[in-house]
Amino acid sequence: MSFTPTDYDPYDFANRRHIGPSPAEMDEMLKAVGVATLDQLIEETIPATIRQGKPLTWAPLAEHELLAKMRAVAAKNKVMTSLIGQGYYGTVTPPAIQRNILENPAWYTAYTPYQPEIAQGRLEALLNYQTMVADLTGLPVANASLLDEATAAAEAMTMAERSAKSKARAFFVDEHCHPQTIAVIRTRALPLGIEIVVGDPDDMDPASVFGAIFQYPGTWGHVRDLTPWIEKLHAAKAIAVVASDLLALMMLKAPGEMGADIAVGSAQRFGVPMGYGGPHAAFMSCRDDLKRAMPGRIVGVSIDAHGNKAYRLSLQTREQHIRREKATSNVCTAQALLAVMASFYAVFHGPKGLRAIAERVHSYTIRLAKALRDAGATLPPKAFFDTITVEVGVGQAGILAAARLEGLNFRKVGQDHVGISLDETTDEDVLRRVLRAFGIHEAPPAEGDLGFPAEMLRRSEVLTHPVFHMNRAESEMMRYMRRLSDRDLALDRAMIPLGSCTMKLNAAAEMMPITWPEFGSLHPFAPFDQALGYKEAIDDLAAKLCEITGYDAMSMQPNSGAQGEYAGLLTIQAYHRARGEGHRDICLIPVSAHGTNPASAQMVGLKVVVVKSAPNGDVDLEDFRDKAAAAGANLAACMITYPSTHGVFEETVREICDITHSHGGQVYIDGANMNAMVGLVKPGEIGGDVSHLNLHKTFAIPHGGGGPGMGPIGVKAHLAPYLPGHPETGGAEGPVSAAPYGSASILLISWAYCLMMGGPGLTQATRVAILNANYIAARLRGAYEVLFMGNRGRVAHECILDTRPFAEAGVTVDDIAKRLIDNGFHAPTMSWPVAGTLMVEPTESETKAEIDRFITALLAIRAEIKAVEAGEISAEDSPLRHAPHTVNDLVADWTRKYSREQGCFPPGAFRVDKYWPPVGRVDNVYGDRNLICTCPPLESYAEAAE
Amino acid sequence: MSFTPTDYDPYDFANRRHIGPSPAEMDEMLKAVGVATLDQLIEETIPATIRQGKPLTWAPLAEHELLAKMRAVAAKNKVMTSLIGQGYYGTVTPPAIQRNILENPAWYTAYTPYQPEIAQGRLEALLNYQTMVADLTGLPVANASLLDEATAAAEAMTMAERSAKSKARAFFVDEHCHPQTIAVIRTRALPLGIEIVVGDPDDMDPASVFGAIFQYPGTWGHVRDLTPWIEKLHAAKAIAVVASDLLALMMLKAPGEMGADIAVGSAQRFGVPMGYGGPHAAFMSCRDDLKRAMPGRIVGVSIDAHGNKAYRLSLQTREQHIRREKATSNVCTAQALLAVMASFYAVFHGPKGLRAIAERVHSYTIRLAKALRDAGATLPPKAFFDTITVEVGVGQAGILAAARLEGLNFRKVGQDHVGISLDETTDEDVLRRVLRAFGIHEAPPAEGDLGFPAEMLRRSEVLTHPVFHMNRAESEMMRYMRRLSDRDLALDRAMIPLGSCTMKLNAAAEMMPITWPEFGSLHPFAPFDQALGYKEAIDDLAAKLCEITGYDAMSMQPNSGAQGEYAGLLTIQAYHRARGEGHRDICLIPVSAHGTNPASAQMVGLKVVVVKSAPNGDVDLEDFRDKAAAAGANLAACMITYPSTHGVFEETVREICDITHSHGGQVYIDGANMNAMVGLVKPGEIGGDVSHLNLHKTFAIPHGGGGPGMGPIGVKAHLAPYLPGHPETGGAEGPVSAAPYGSASILLISWAYCLMMGGPGLTQATRVAILNANYIAARLRGAYEVLFMGNRGRVAHECILDTRPFAEAGVTVDDIAKRLIDNGFHAPTMSWPVAGTLMVEPTESETKAEIDRFITALLAIRAEIKAVEAGEISAEDSPLRHAPHTVNDLVADWTRKYSREQGCFPPGAFRVDKYWPPVGRVDNVYGDRNLICTCPPLESYAEAAE
Repeated sequence: MSFTPTDYDPYDFANRRHIGPSPAEMDEMLKAVGVATLDQLIEETIPATIRQGKPLTWAPLAEHELLAKMRAVAAKNKVMTSLIGQGYYGTVTPPAIQRNILENPAWYTAYTPYQPEIAQGRLEALLNYQTMVADLTGLPVANASLLDEATAAAEAMTMAERSAKSKARAFFVDEHCHPQTIAVIRTRALPLGIEIVVGDPDDMDPASVFGAIFQYPGTWGHVRDLTPWIEKLHAAKAIAVVASDLLALMMLKAPGEMGADIAVGSAQRFGVPMGYGGPHAAFMSCRDDLKRAMPGRIVGVSIDAHGNKAYRLSLQTREQHIRREKATSNVCTAQALLAVMASFYAVFHGPKGLRAIAERVHSYTIRLAKALRDAGATLPPKAFFDTITVEVGVGQAGILAAARLEGLNFRKVGQDHVGISLDETTDEDVLRRVLRAFGIHEAPPAEGDLGFPAEMLRRSEVLTHPVFHMNRAESEMMRYMRRLSDRDLALDRAMIPLGSCTMKLNAAAEMMPITWPEFGSLHPFAPFDQALGYKEAIDDLAAKLCEITGYDAMSMQPNSGAQGEYAGLLTIQAYHRARGEGHRDICLIPVSAHGTNPASAQMVGLKVVVVKSAPNGDVDLEDFRDKAAAAGANLAACMITYPSTHGVFEETVREICDITHSHGGQVYIDGANMNAMVGLVKPGEIGGDVSHLNLHKTFAIPHGGGGPGMGPIGVKAHLAPYLPGHPETGGAEGPVSAAPYGSASILLISWAYCLMMGGPGLTQATRVAILNANYIAARLRGAYEVLFMGNRGRVAHECILDTRPFAEAGVTVDDIAKRLIDNGFHAPTMSWPVAGTLMVEPTESETKAEIDRFITALLAIRAEIKAVEAGEISAEDSPLRHAPHTVNDLVADWTRKYSREQGCFPPGAFRVDKYWPPVGRVDNVYGDRNLICTCPPLESYAEAAE
Repeated sequence: MSFTPTDYDPYDFANRRHIGPSPAEMDEMLKAVGVATLDQLIEETIPATIRQGKPLTWAPLAEHELLAKMRAVAAKNKVMTSLIGQGYYGTVTPPAIQRNILENPAWYTAYTPYQPEIAQGRLEALLNYQTMVADLTGLPVANASLLDEATAAAEAMTMAERSAKSKARAFFVDEHCHPQTIAVIRTRALPLGIEIVVGDPDDMDPASVFGAIFQYPGTWGHVRDLTPWIEKLHAAKAIAVVASDLLALMMLKAPGEMGADIAVGSAQRFGVPMGYGGPHAAFMSCRDDLKRAMPGRIVGVSIDAHGNKAYRLSLQTREQHIRREKATSNVCTAQALLAVMASFYAVFHGPKGLRAIAERVHSYTIRLAKALRDAGATLPPKAFFDTITVEVGVGQAGILAAARLEGLNFRKVGQDHVGISLDETTDEDVLRRVLRAFGIHEAPPAEGDLGFPAEMLRRSEVLTHPVFHMNRAESEMMRYMRRLSDRDLALDRAMIPLGSCTMKLNAAAEMMPITWPEFGSLHPFAPFDQALGYKEAIDDLAAKLCEITGYDAMSMQPNSGAQGEYAGLLTIQAYHRARGEGHRDICLIPVSAHGTNPASAQMVGLKVVVVKSAPNGDVDLEDFRDKAAAAGANLAACMITYPSTHGVFEETVREICDITHSHGGQVYIDGANMNAMVGLVKPGEIGGDVSHLNLHKTFAIPHGGGGPGMGPIGVKAHLAPYLPGHPETGGAEGPVSAAPYGSASILLISWAYCLMMGGPGLTQATRVAILNANYIAARLRGAYEVLFMGNRGRVAHECILDTRPFAEAGVTVDDIAKRLIDNGFHAPTMSWPVAGTLMVEPTESETKAEIDRFITALLAIRAEIKAVEAGEISAEDSPLRHAPHTVNDLVADWTRKYSREQGCFPPGAFRVDKYWPPVGRVDNVYGDRNLICTCPPLESYAEAAE
């Protein structure tokens, strides 16, 4: 009997693991949508004129094949002890933090905490982060993370410009700043017309600047008292920014104590692996009166409907999606997951432990310096913390080579110095190896003198809050992490149907490699030949992304979507300049664009001209044509999103591109909605010149509770020469991020996703994302009005539900969003792109069962709204207004006009496995009015416990 | 200014991570206990005469040092493609299962599900496992895992002996059984007086045996229809046991379909890494009428107090701790975590996927066989599934060497055959490498004929239950795993104060290495030079355990505590036999012993003589003396637990040992309470000749929800020659486990624990375990009577609370245990060693805060009992009886005589982070009366949802 195995591949990741609906479910869904086949639906959804011809073809890898490949690639990286410093340091990630946060989907699959009721856990962790930063920098207000130290410094510059009373147009940059920081500041300053003066602070002319930034300790290790320079700046009504290092601040006088107005830096060395450049959390803190000018997210303390303490994001109205072209920053994504890790690192060690780590590092540095000096070496930094620079003359190459033979990377400084930065991982063995690289074979001295003047010693208490004084037993820490994560609702428990945010599966196999030491331990400026594994991964991912987008070149540098937009526009502007058309300064942006679009445009010095929408939600073609013509030879670019932010594949996209090109402008296509296009439409083929890709939306990088993200940009060949460069890797243009490949380690996630899906799998994912969205639209039509559809009645990968008709009955979009929590769902995107609407994006990863549960919930909510409309119950008395319901509601006396059962277990809610929000509806107004951005004092906990 | 870093080591794992109370907390606790120092407490607790002289001295490693060391050791193992088979196969662990179960403390830190209300998640997963095994073996009842295939086969033999109507005393063993299975059966049979006949089933004399075991497919690959032999056995009223392979059963007729009475085997290849021998779950299933004779744990379906479906362990009264010397098996630990993994593997793939995997493996085997035959090879198995044996004559060594050059391990079979077993990881590349080892360089044939007769093809449906037909999207699977884990209460949320079970921290750093492929992918019979890393780890761990226990040699083979007892007693008996004293057959065991003690004793053919307890709980020395004297020259051994199961360091232990030795007996000291001795008392120094160690109690291996465990034994030098041997590694004695080093991969956890703690850290852990227990005793004294204390009023590492005085008021020990769930605690050990008591063991890992929370809960419960005693409320109406309270209680109308608040939030319970049990109190009687041990049909889910 001849035998052929069943034609069925159990390893099919794309169709059995990543894509939610089973074939049988898809059949039912197609029926509900009213089409015979998925092909037909795609045909009705995407205009034939823009569909791509050539399919994506690379074959998928099974999960175990992927992991085997990843191990082989990892082995091509060489893990050395990198003592390069320059903002990146060896650190020990406590295993309990690695396992329970970085490797735990409850933490990494969470979304940005815009819905505070279901995010109290990570909000608490982020508030701990802010408290830690505020304490260590000696400034009262901190935000919950920026992308990297260099961009944080650039943000500080523009914040200083906005805040300074000085009207000068220059910004002074201490030559002791890290080179990548100086470079990113220069990039940022150029289009804004800010003059950058780099030099010795003693030569600074305070009257000519609106602000200045100093590095403390300096990039070559110098510890200097900045007070005199800061006083001079203040006398000139200018702002002082200090880029600093959290570990050093455990021993050194705080920036705030020297008078600094703003402090920035990286929290990387608080337990976050270097990862060849990221992701890590950068920080910013400032004087209290500057807080409303601070970019990024700030966690604050408010109260819930019952008057209990509750955390939330404060001052959300400052965010760029509200300010748009008046925005002062395009910062959107934070580095939430990494900030959480860093905050737990501080909780794990507490002030005593952190100080001990700092002192230990300092002690090794002292001993190293003494040994070198005893051997006759000259060390320019007289006062130092963890970094020394050694004059080596023509011996530089020899010393660097000798270090490598010892398994060490030193920093090449100029032509005749080497830099050595010690860190938490330094031990006696490392010390001896360093000395051997200098030919010193004697045992190092046992001790030495303090490496900086005693008056620079920190005297103030830090991290006095009880959370930093918990018992540090791992059992206790593990349970604290578990408790916080249990308070939150993430993808590991339920669908997060956020329009425009593409909360798809983050598969375990994709996540595993990033915590391997071969990927985690690499310094971003390690010699090229130590990072051949990364090179292979990055090059292949870039090639695949080019094939997917139809672009010719890709820059992996931007480490968020907004950074991608910014980098893309910079590239366009550099191109215009190179052609002698630097005068082009108008950017057309449709009114429905993501808020980051106009914000990014203004950051590159473009004037935003807003284009109207047609009633069907499309870009108003006439208006576009008119405004393009009006701009004429000054048209720099247009920025469009495709499919549109209304979730529709507009037929006119090619025309819009043609119009733009006809005036000499460049077309920026925002890649936020790329999940509706992969394998079906290439932005580079329909007229785009540049796009950014949100790898954390379309390409499976988890949202991490509000970051990390990655926003690489693809460009057509003519723009390729103008992509961001980097001081470490070269290139004509300046960098936009601190590291050459942004948050390099998480590129592995997107690469793994592409490899496991294969070309056809990626294409099918897109098709099913469109099916899932159209299924929701079809099922909800009738109960809700679905706004904006294509010519043939189809939405793309998301759909917009109108809740404005319920306003008359007093039911708000907020009521619906919070009521969904009772059903165990994160709300869809609220009031964007249209106020009073909900934008729903299911992604391809959700199964029909989960989507049906969501539909059940929304239909039940509609029924509750009907009851209000019919006057059966008032909006105020309805479960909609009292949502979300908590266990405390249940325990307390019940005076509601509906039953406990109806309140807590609406249709769609799990019974046994129900998610209970830890707080009731959070009061936003109270929180903004009473802004508290560090951990509340112990008494408030006592109160809450009562 | 000279600088010395703070004298404080932030990496101190022992004192800041593993040991719970901080120094300040310890001071407070010592005060409550009424001693000035910890030294004083230890002095008052442990008699000076038995305290050890020499401290443990090795230095601790920091977490990152440990991980670096582990990586270096891992690199010494060589990962080859092992095609050795013989019960161990390559498998692909789905990454989502690895991450969400094996690497998730919510699963691995859980305890055995004796308290069903807080274990519904893992009970469901284990019921899935039973359903899977029952389905695949074609037998209606399955248990929730045994230790390994070989011991499962031995258990099946004794079960057959108990169940067979035949009175014959021999057991037939098919020569096609795996060698280690045959060896373990021989070991087990010898002391029981069972004659083992190994041979060709055609030569079997059914009338002379009470049962027989066949391997299906056979160890050399043969697929034979067992029906004729089974029919012959049945005609002789004998029992037929079939050792089988779950993957093969996806294609082959089931054992039950051939008439088998009992089936056994290993579920390893269902996604559980080989791990150099384990841990893996073995299975057993049987005819319905044999179920009450089946060893091990059986999950069943019952109802809760509200009549809702609830899972529980069925037939618990069969367990050895109840039956003691009448026990028929000493099986206690299961392989719960691995059974859960295997069951999820089946859920992940479903019947279609599993069949596809089986067919794929079979297809490769067909092609391999064809290619070899085409090249002229002779293959004895005419019918095969995944394993072939090739006649190679004098070329054996050459073929094995050629295979190794291809990165392959073949099996050496006899002197002139090699065996090749293909598996899930086999692909075209492996196939070609196998052929190249035979010098065949042509492409393998594309297909071939079915490898076994068509009538052997499985026709019956399997895995028809809906759980095996879930949508297999990873999102759905991840959420199912999360939901189940959320239903359970494990160490990652709260203290589990189980006396005698030592639920201490399982640190993340200890757990990380076990999922590295260098440790996971090794076949237990891989050539020695491929496992040098394992050798280093095992040798060093053994040396440390010898130092800790005062023994001279250690066997790592027993893979549970009870296996250790059994192996230790076998060793003693072999020693007596070797000295010509094989007649010694009496074993003295105190009445308070662990139930496994007498059970193990009877398994090695010893007669158990029970020794009384004195009123203070100590062994009654007079009675011991008398019974030892009565046994005289027939005294084989005594088995004592130290400190005693009453939690006291008896002063008389040396005397007991001396008495035993004076009659020529050997002293077995049960190591269950080793956590009270490490660094302070060495059993080998106070008179013990042999002890087992529960590595899953004292040495940080997690309990995994009821296994894995490891029970190595230490012996004095005179017993060393009689330790278990193994067919693969030699030794005079027979093996007790399938693999030479038992569940080798988890030895790494204990090794990591010893390395990170260092000798002084381990000692301090013991001291603090004693402090924590005495603190609880001191705080609860007055409210509860604390039974059994040492001469100076101290308990050891646990304390026993008497609840019998509450019986009069109608309050049971169960009421207290279930009420603790409302407080968010797992109950202490109930009614053991004394009925009507609670035995509390906090371990050193719990902080004072958590212990205080527990004390608060117990004091509040005492107050509730007082209210019953005072007649304020009846026991029936009290929250004690209605405990545990569920969310459904809260939602429903409230007619209780106490408030919702009192019912659900008793003192000690978390408010926001409260654990809610998914079911109310489970009805045990109902469950045993209506025994359902496979997944209930779909309708019952529908009912439950209503």
